[in-house]
Amino acid sequence: MGKIGPGEKLPSKRALSAHLKISVVTVETAYSLLASEGYIYSVPGSGYYAENIPGRIIGPKKTRTIIKEPEQSSSYLIDFSTNRADTTLFPFSVWAKLSREILSSGGDELLNTCSGKGVYRLRQAIGEYLRCFRGMDVQPEQIVVGAGSEYLTGLVIQLLGREKVYGVEDPGYVKTHQVFSANCSKVLPIEVDGSGARLSSLAAQGIQIAHITPSHHFPLGTIMPAARRHEILAWAYAASDRYIIEDDYDSDFRMYGKPVPTLQSMDSYSRVLYMNTFTKSLAPSMRIGYLVIPPELISCFEEKLGFYACTVPVFEQLILAEFLKRGYFERHVSRMRKLYLSRRDHFIRSLSSSPLSKILEVQSANGGTHLLLNSKNGLSERELKERAAAQGVRVYGLSEYYSFGKNKDEGRIIAGYSGMNAQEISLGISALERAWL
Amino acid sequence: MGKIGPGEKLPSKRALSAHLKISVVTVETAYSLLASEGYIYSVPGSGYYAENIPGRIIGPKKTRTIIKEPEQSSSYLIDFSTNRADTTLFPFSVWAKLSREILSSGGDELLNTCSGKGVYRLRQAIGEYLRCFRGMDVQPEQIVVGAGSEYLTGLVIQLLGREKVYGVEDPGYVKTHQVFSANCSKVLPIEVDGSGARLSSLAAQGIQIAHITPSHHFPLGTIMPAARRHEILAWAYAASDRYIIEDDYDSDFRMYGKPVPTLQSMDSYSRVLYMNTFTKSLAPSMRIGYLVIPPELISCFEEKLGFYACTVPVFEQLILAEFLKRGYFERHVSRMRKLYLSRRDHFIRSLSSSPLSKILEVQSANGGTHLLLNSKNGLSERELKERAAAQGVRVYGLSEYYSFGKNKDEGRIIAGYSGMNAQEISLGISALERAWL
Repeated sequence: MGKIGPGEKLPSKRALSAHLKISVVTVETAYSLLASEGYIYSVPGSGYYAENIPGRIIGPKKTRTIIKEPEQSSSYLIDFSTNRADTTLFPFSVWAKLSREILSSGGDELLNTCSGKGVYRLRQAIGEYLRCFRGMDVQPEQIVVGAGSEYLTGLVIQLLGREKVYGVEDPGYVKTHQVFSANCSKVLPIEVDGSGARLSSLAAQGIQIAHITPSHHFPLGTIMPAARRHEILAWAYAASDRYIIEDDYDSDFRMYGKPVPTLQSMDSYSRVLYMNTFTKSLAPSMRIGYLVIPPELISCFEEKLGFYACTVPVFEQLILAEFLKRGYFERHVSRMRKLYLSRRDHFIRSLSSSPLSKILEVQSANGGTHLLLNSKNGLSERELKERAAAQGVRVYGLSEYYSFGKNKDEGRIIAGYSGMNAQEISLGISALERAWL
Repeated sequence: MGKIGPGEKLPSKRALSAHLKISVVTVETAYSLLASEGYIYSVPGSGYYAENIPGRIIGPKKTRTIIKEPEQSSSYLIDFSTNRADTTLFPFSVWAKLSREILSSGGDELLNTCSGKGVYRLRQAIGEYLRCFRGMDVQPEQIVVGAGSEYLTGLVIQLLGREKVYGVEDPGYVKTHQVFSANCSKVLPIEVDGSGARLSSLAAQGIQIAHITPSHHFPLGTIMPAARRHEILAWAYAASDRYIIEDDYDSDFRMYGKPVPTLQSMDSYSRVLYMNTFTKSLAPSMRIGYLVIPPELISCFEEKLGFYACTVPVFEQLILAEFLKRGYFERHVSRMRKLYLSRRDHFIRSLSSSPLSKILEVQSANGGTHLLLNSKNGLSERELKERAAAQGVRVYGLSEYYSFGKNKDEGRIIAGYSGMNAQEISLGISALERAWL
């Protein structure tokens, strides 16, 4: 057949079916498809006509360019990353048992949406966990479950307003800075001293909302002492638009003694939003975090953000609720803590018995999953990193954790050990001896 | 013991342990805890001293206000909601089998993070699905998996810039408007006519990025004809900062014939971002959606948003990948489509044989999971809704889907049937007869 111009009549169904030797039904289907897509139109009692679709607005045929995904694997033999978790202890059989239980219970709860703040049972279980292990008095209504800290940070910014002036610790977790930058208009650095976030830094820059890690600063390991905690709260209380976002990201891995009380539990005037995640303590593949909002902000949250569906699958939420309620989480965290503690001890002992001890000062606060190594012989961070790389070892410089361009090379190295066993740590140290001595 | 003032020395460990008749180790633990929290400090060779924490900055004791969660359950006997899915056909046993398989394979993949864009295998499976069922030529590298459309919309806004002028269809899905309002600075209404989004509305208001539902407008059911599709693409091509976000939310449920070709597949100049979700077709509790970004935007995405972790648990992603690859999804969707089709037919037949047919015109485009009922006897939307409510039936007015204050009461009702079986539909119609005749 030739080309049919705009407004031209198409052959009748019967004629076309005879011509092409196919059934009338087939032609009918084809015509109604063309009609529903707008290529032809029907005139009742007359037949089908071609639509007028100017050819000039139909673009050229697409050509396919092959896109390559960037490689994710590391080219280093040994990587002292702070970002890896040991998954060997993950209680697969328990998790599998719970998921079978929940799947076999089936039903509506599993398939239908939950509250935008998450499954109530999970929020109850988190509240109970916070009461027992963090001494926090939190009601399930204050808890918002979401797909990880990054997502929840985005929610907090929408709640408090993206036009506000935010502050993030510098040095700090670089992703935190990235998330704030991607979501709000003004993000400023909060300086950190030996007691954590500096108050003068908040006041001088007009910061309204401060994201801080008082329980355990990342990566310096500082635990904010009581006096500073009270001062920071007093700062927040001094103006009605000030809030603190308390990121308690690794409280589960404090090595000795009980974790420090949270700012959330010390807060008398509803100015602290608390956030934590199960990503570190369970598995990096599980994006489940939660937010504790002050009672006074709940109605504002419902009004502004109540329309959002919860981002975590109900299935995962139900498993995690049981995992918490039946004490599996507590047991798992305690095993992980012991594992990381033994690695840390091994790391510190091996370093102190190594000739490296002459040129390195090992600094490590209570807990965490990495050490800070300070060069004593004048080697710069860059030199330390480059020499290590030449031996196939990846270490990280403190300056990499500064994200406002204030990074100075002070010859300080961050070495994570959470994803390495004792043998790998020893291998790494031997390689560092070759690199740095 | 009395109060110890700032700077005062604490009793020695030995003295306190004798005084309290507890072990020295216990006192030591208590002192080191107080020290780590900053309430006391140690002077080597001398002992522990109380820190100076001004009492005035310690706030009052918190009082607990009991917060009540708003009730979620409906007080209506029958609810013609457009927002419910039938979960009776969900293939629990298959899903459970796949989850067992994946859990028992265990291992690193399941526990460690995937690419921020999602598990590669799932993106391959989605690409293959799009090729077979939507005629789209998409590479896995273009696909971004995320926790539902709302989350993905937030990502798109971060990618294209929140300072841009966005447009959303009015009437349309109200949540879409809410998500855009919560995430960007300027959102304007796009008028809709019998062919879908109106071009004049885009041009006149200076809209740069248009969110539209060309395959099946919600809630009007319009399928955008070919000419309008080409015109909309031509609009996007006419300036370098214009993009189309094509929301293909219910393409799986088109009732007759093949789904209409997507704008994405017609786009020659990388101006269409396509999004879809599994929430409608699988279960509302599963927040898995995906975005197809044009090849030209991939490097921009990696640069601006590559730091984000994927918000969907790897476990769900692996199950869904298998579910797609082994054809379960296709079979499931086809069963769901048949179910919804039979309900739709039952709804339309029952209405046309009911006395309601004298006062109602039933309008329904090809597909979807709701009908539009137009009042022919002058009853307003408000009257229709109120009278139905008095009979325990919830129906929705078209004006509820306008979110820019332009809603006019035209006596048009939206009645969803996806969550109701034939019996419930019949009961609902009887109640509406009592209400409206």
